[in-house]
Amino acid sequence: MEKIANGIYKITVGTPEEFTPVKVMKPVPAPTLGALDDNPCPLDEQNIRLIRGTGYVTVEIPLGDDEDIYGFGLQLKSFRQSGKKKIIRVNSDPAADLGDSHGPVPFYLSTAGYGVLVDTSRFATFYCGCVKRKGSRQEMENYPSVPSEFGAHYIHKAHSGNVFVKIPSAEGADIYVFAGSSLKDALARYNLFSGGGAFPPLWGLGILYRGWWHTDSGHVISMAREFRSDRIPCDVFGLEPGWQTHAYSCTFDWDREKYPDPAGMCREMKNMGFRMNLWEHCYTNPASPIYEELYPVSGDSYVWDGVIPDFTIKEAADAFAGHHDGIAGQGISGFKLDECDGGDFSGWGFPEFTSFPGGMDGEQMRSELGLLYQKTMLAPFEKRGLRTWGQARASHALAAPYPYVLYSDLYDHSDFVRGVATSALGGVMWSPEVRQTGSSEELIRRLQAVVFSPLAVINAYMIPSPPWKQFEHDRNLAGEFLPDADELTAACREIFELRMSLIPYLYDAFYTYHTDGVPPIRPLVTDFPDDLSVRDVWDEFLIGDSILFAPVIWGKGNHRSVYFPEGVWYGFFDGIKYCGGKKYEFDPATNEILLFTKEDSLIPFAAPVLNCDADTVFDISFRLYGKRGSCRLIADDGETLDYIKEKPEMIKICFDDEKLSGCVPNRRYAFGQVIQITER
Amino acid sequence: MEKIANGIYKITVGTPEEFTPVKVMKPVPAPTLGALDDNPCPLDEQNIRLIRGTGYVTVEIPLGDDEDIYGFGLQLKSFRQSGKKKIIRVNSDPAADLGDSHGPVPFYLSTAGYGVLVDTSRFATFYCGCVKRKGSRQEMENYPSVPSEFGAHYIHKAHSGNVFVKIPSAEGADIYVFAGSSLKDALARYNLFSGGGAFPPLWGLGILYRGWWHTDSGHVISMAREFRSDRIPCDVFGLEPGWQTHAYSCTFDWDREKYPDPAGMCREMKNMGFRMNLWEHCYTNPASPIYEELYPVSGDSYVWDGVIPDFTIKEAADAFAGHHDGIAGQGISGFKLDECDGGDFSGWGFPEFTSFPGGMDGEQMRSELGLLYQKTMLAPFEKRGLRTWGQARASHALAAPYPYVLYSDLYDHSDFVRGVATSALGGVMWSPEVRQTGSSEELIRRLQAVVFSPLAVINAYMIPSPPWKQFEHDRNLAGEFLPDADELTAACREIFELRMSLIPYLYDAFYTYHTDGVPPIRPLVTDFPDDLSVRDVWDEFLIGDSILFAPVIWGKGNHRSVYFPEGVWYGFFDGIKYCGGKKYEFDPATNEILLFTKEDSLIPFAAPVLNCDADTVFDISFRLYGKRGSCRLIADDGETLDYIKEKPEMIKICFDDEKLSGCVPNRRYAFGQVIQITER
Repeated sequence: MEKIANGIYKITVGTPEEFTPVKVMKPVPAPTLGALDDNPCPLDEQNIRLIRGTGYVTVEIPLGDDEDIYGFGLQLKSFRQSGKKKIIRVNSDPAADLGDSHGPVPFYLSTAGYGVLVDTSRFATFYCGCVKRKGSRQEMENYPSVPSEFGAHYIHKAHSGNVFVKIPSAEGADIYVFAGSSLKDALARYNLFSGGGAFPPLWGLGILYRGWWHTDSGHVISMAREFRSDRIPCDVFGLEPGWQTHAYSCTFDWDREKYPDPAGMCREMKNMGFRMNLWEHCYTNPASPIYEELYPVSGDSYVWDGVIPDFTIKEAADAFAGHHDGIAGQGISGFKLDECDGGDFSGWGFPEFTSFPGGMDGEQMRSELGLLYQKTMLAPFEKRGLRTWGQARASHALAAPYPYVLYSDLYDHSDFVRGVATSALGGVMWSPEVRQTGSSEELIRRLQAVVFSPLAVINAYMIPSPPWKQFEHDRNLAGEFLPDADELTAACREIFELRMSLIPYLYDAFYTYHTDGVPPIRPLVTDFPDDLSVRDVWDEFLIGDSILFAPVIWGKGNHRSVYFPEGVWYGFFDGIKYCGGKKYEFDPATNEILLFTKEDSLIPFAAPVLNCDADTVFDISFRLYGKRGSCRLIADDGETLDYIKEKPEMIKICFDDEKLSGCVPNRRYAFGQVIQITER
Repeated sequence: MEKIANGIYKITVGTPEEFTPVKVMKPVPAPTLGALDDNPCPLDEQNIRLIRGTGYVTVEIPLGDDEDIYGFGLQLKSFRQSGKKKIIRVNSDPAADLGDSHGPVPFYLSTAGYGVLVDTSRFATFYCGCVKRKGSRQEMENYPSVPSEFGAHYIHKAHSGNVFVKIPSAEGADIYVFAGSSLKDALARYNLFSGGGAFPPLWGLGILYRGWWHTDSGHVISMAREFRSDRIPCDVFGLEPGWQTHAYSCTFDWDREKYPDPAGMCREMKNMGFRMNLWEHCYTNPASPIYEELYPVSGDSYVWDGVIPDFTIKEAADAFAGHHDGIAGQGISGFKLDECDGGDFSGWGFPEFTSFPGGMDGEQMRSELGLLYQKTMLAPFEKRGLRTWGQARASHALAAPYPYVLYSDLYDHSDFVRGVATSALGGVMWSPEVRQTGSSEELIRRLQAVVFSPLAVINAYMIPSPPWKQFEHDRNLAGEFLPDADELTAACREIFELRMSLIPYLYDAFYTYHTDGVPPIRPLVTDFPDDLSVRDVWDEFLIGDSILFAPVIWGKGNHRSVYFPEGVWYGFFDGIKYCGGKKYEFDPATNEILLFTKEDSLIPFAAPVLNCDADTVFDISFRLYGKRGSCRLIADDGETLDYIKEKPEMIKICFDDEKLSGCVPNRRYAFGQVIQITER
């Protein structure tokens, strides 16, 4: 057992592989790790055992019957993982609760306060307390038998037995144990070990609108004008595949018929307060200017007739980043890295037996491609000293520091909201993006959920006009607007404005993610692992430390119950009081958002801006719940990488004894009054 | 390349594993193989290549762009397999079109007239023309590129490229190539190589009714009386888990409170014309009388607290079969072998890393357990010189000779009917069993489909009364019958009687399966591989050589089209003429079955009996379609294994020049008149 940092231990069983998440991604642990308690390893090294098979190994890791486990990165189909079998396989088409997803992670957390990373890029199978090993005759006779009743054998019973991890192709693995004082602390240590959480530019917390595939620069500019005249907050406008000369596979080259002057368009958009984001995937078409360079440093299969660059090879990463440096220089703020996951259907993706010149095979690359791609794409922005904030469709272990949020072509709203909860427990970020909808109500419910996720995305790639003008695909294409388009636009604007008002609060929560490893948006079990009532609650979220959000899932009716964990809580808008440890029933109207605040919280609430610029000044009022409270505001430049070299200016504001203190002058915030929301 | 039999070749790449379907199941090829043409191997050995990976190998097998491929055993979600990726994994919960099923088989057929068995028990992945390997720069530039249009990349295009088979854990494999004169001939050779198709007892072709889990011998007897007084054909009555002292896991021991005299009950049932079938699985409970013997020869994991016998070990198979010999001796005709597949959910099944004392691991055993279990269960019947006919929930390669039909807990009717088509192309048999339904119409549509499958099963394990008295679960439990129970009973009886009338015809078709390897019920592509119109037709079946059945899928409305392959076809009941090579539209009423007969066919049609006994004599009339026709009738004892030692009596009957010939006296059939169905 090797101590890696305070409370982080590495236990090696057998002979680990050459290519693993830690060895490929080479995480640089956050310096803040050093200040944490030096907790001892909660697992006895002797009880972590290697079972050798032909062509695979299995690692046995102790698990107590009274522990529940969570994690495995993005999981759309389930939340609590104890008792389940999960295969950690990057996949765009998860059809069932098998473990595969856009961002699965071979990492789990126990309610007993520790985390385990099995450092493998293989499609490892985790049996989470669902295997009973043969014991001696004696032991067997003492087992309580499954009752002989109709159906009893299929009823979910408490898990029992250890965790077993079958790792194909490997002869061993490094097991990293994160010893926390709590589940949240263990998770934080994992994120800090990964490098600390990604810190967004301020504009990354605004609204990202992805436009129609067939758009062109004229249409982009007119859309932007329309957004501004409709007072729709929007920070980033995203272009879908149509911007390139060829997509599927990609040339990474502007289609000059549609976009004769990309830099000019970006400047004009920037003048209206919009950053630009470009869709792409890494499968490089023969017509691309970088195809020649990538050909020799790519895998031995094609995807959509394009080569797959091996980003572990410097020449490939440099050629790819170099070309994108030119694109970024035209005024692009970030990218959407599509299809780096791979699919089971439609015959796309590269096979597992693909061989890459850097030494990985297709299975390992399928696990790592998402993060390698994300990492490669940082260079053009690092060179400029700028943060980026984008989207990616694949992730894996050690993802925390990468400024990319996952998304999907799937659309079930329960799954989408569950993804917000599970991703937070595995160091990945996920957005339940909004595309078309079948009704105004659906549009509103989906928007309410997405603005309380790491990235507020409206992906209108299939429609030329915004969904609040017309949510129906065919009518939108025909240019036919809803009769109540103005009312719907107003309702959607209100949701966006709530997000914009909370940007200062979110920005601080993200900074905590960066320095302390605590995810800004997380399910209740993160903070209340000992409360048995929250163990299956995937649809309530802590936003920062003070706000609780309970989305109304589209398609489940307007009724829902909300469980409040310990303490006293208040309605965010109306100040109604709720007691912790209880469940309350709600019937929120369509435009009503179930948002609550912990007692004794001071929430900085900004007058909504349309977008965040370098010189944006937030006009802050403070919402006080209870008698006292405090908050912190980060007052840096909001867009450069200077925060890495030098701590940003932090303003600590306190309300106590009926007065506010700490409102020191700064470049980012103007301070207004305190609004006492709750009865004195 | 080694020639195994006429037109069957073995090509070894790398070093094959010790445990594979051929090595574990040890097929005894049917003697009839010797009479077939000595076709040359259609695949060039040089083009079958091994690609080595770490902990796995990949085998590349040529595939022409103009070939379509079918197979992989039972596939519920898709029919034509070219262009798809399929993982051959035995699994009770296939949630998507990934290849896993109760009976997946690493065998495929090409429309070019050959079959390929990759002899592996691993969860092999078949990439069926969906991988494009990197070529030289030159080759690449000549590729036609995927069009740069919205969605074009996802539209299913014709497959291209070879078949690649990734085999985990292996260092090589034997590839068996079946060189047919056609797809059907290649399939037949595969089945003959497996040992020839299973030949059912006559009673196995009748109706199998599975009773309520909570039934007891009094209820069984009264149900039997009710069936007889209602004139419901039924040959076999099946008991579900409740017959044992403990189920989940099993004791294989009668619950004497419910069944005080099993042998007496079986006798009484036999007197009313019913055979008995018993549910079980092989996971053996500590309370079972054979637990002691099985403990040392079982795997090192438990399932439902029971041991998993390793049937590759003689002691385990003998102990298991020996105990079941006693049960068979009480008058049991067969068994339903449940849960030998294993599941992804609810935490049941044994893990892949389970170690079995015979040397296999859990992955290999999960592939082979179904067939090993089926094989083990033959002994009690072989000892008595009797055939058995039962159900099993798992199968794999080389299944043809085993007298077990697959079933599932799933229930989607399209999937169920598709299973009939796909299973036939992989040497396995499948029944789209009928359980509860939501309406009379659903009951009827499902029954119509199941009586044209290898096993006509009604699985009423959840309800005490037959579904035609009450299809609704709760009302059935409450003893509340439908107001129109008599009408529905009559409608169901009529469907059963059609099956009973066709038993002589089916019996001959099954005998052909046994001797010639041609499945009795099969999709059109089997016989018409060059007709491009049938390549995706999974919902039309050839029954024997003369009948075409087109089920109406429940839930899709009453309208459907029927494509007729080459030749002239007639409505089975009304003689209406249809021309081959065309599609016709039908709107069959609920009680109408779309059944057609090829021109110049003579169909032996029996007066329906309630069940088949040793002394049953079928009262045959002949239905003539066209001007002439012939048929064959098998006139053996209908239940013993004597057909193996000695060819059964076969009666060839001919109608030509307006007269019938060949009606020789025999013990099984009484001959009546010819009914000319079609206009002269």
